[in-house]
Amino acid sequence: MAPRKQREIFAATLRLLADKGYDGLTVEGVAETSGVNKTTIYRWWPSKAALLAAALVEADMLDFDVPDTGSLRGDLVALVEALGVLLTEPPGRDVAVAALGAAVHHPEIDARRFFADRLARERVVFERAVRRGELPESTDPMLVMDLLAGAMWTRAVFRGLPLGKDFAAEAVAAVLDGVS
Amino acid sequence: MAPRKQREIFAATLRLLADKGYDGLTVEGVAETSGVNKTTIYRWWPSKAALLAAALVEADMLDFDVPDTGSLRGDLVALVEALGVLLTEPPGRDVAVAALGAAVHHPEIDARRFFADRLARERVVFERAVRRGELPESTDPMLVMDLLAGAMWTRAVFRGLPLGKDFAAEAVAAVLDGVS
Repeated sequence: MAPRKQREIFAATLRLLADKGYDGLTVEGVAETSGVNKTTIYRWWPSKAALLAAALVEADMLDFDVPDTGSLRGDLVALVEALGVLLTEPPGRDVAVAALGAAVHHPEIDARRFFADRLARERVVFERAVRRGELPESTDPMLVMDLLAGAMWTRAVFRGLPLGKDFAAEAVAAVLDGVS
Repeated sequence: MAPRKQREIFAATLRLLADKGYDGLTVEGVAETSGVNKTTIYRWWPSKAALLAAALVEADMLDFDVPDTGSLRGDLVALVEALGVLLTEPPGRDVAVAALGAAVHHPEIDARRFFADRLARERVVFERAVRRGELPESTDPMLVMDLLAGAMWTRAVFRGLPLGKDFAAEAVAAVLDGVS
């Protein structure tokens, strides 16, 4: 399938998920919105869950640039600010929230792959920081991203509070420098 | 209403939420399970959303003890470990995940009240730490709890990975001491 066609299918999948929830998401609906034959979609992705799992990893909407600002602090702030934008502005917010709800209730979507893929791309930020001497080699990138991404979700989605323009920098400072 | 009866109503509300999701949760179902007349429930809580909001704050299942171990580190590890148990063992896990999904899609449930109530109770841990000289007075307890609670959610629920017996202590060490 042409990459452009795939991108349209993935975009339609996420849009339908955000609008109608996982229960309202159907391969038929994706076929209609993207103008691709239903059987063609099924040939590539054998189920709605497989289609959504692929869309989460591949769709432009959830894509992100791995920053290279020259410092670990700058890179982490950039990563976390981008997540903040995703979680607070439509359509990213609706997609992220709907995808999380769907993934939690439907393990067959395999959200692990989505998070593993993001972390694999984020690792370079930590590798560069170790090389620059900004971080001990023993630092666990997954723990750092759990703390930072988790803080964005907790503040913006769970608490439903505005992030404030310095929230990303404050969260990164807390984790890099410690609060005590 | 007698406190014992209220507790039964709240327990039934969370159990039904975990079993059937928010759409399947009905005041009728809660009335049946708890043996309380439907009109009585409506007199106290005018809607399903109001009943769930009250249950989240008041139910025994989501209650937690504010630890007083003598050190900030000990208190935070205890808080975070308790959250880890809640997020990984049934029925707490099913309730937490279903409640989050419901709250995100139904703002009328007002999950802010739940999180504000928890933070209000957690604040004493930080006040004691400031008095003991373990934390600067300027420390923002909400930011610390956003990072720590968020890390538990991210690792256990989003990534779906086991927490490991030292995860709480490692997350607390990262935030108190900094990783760099």
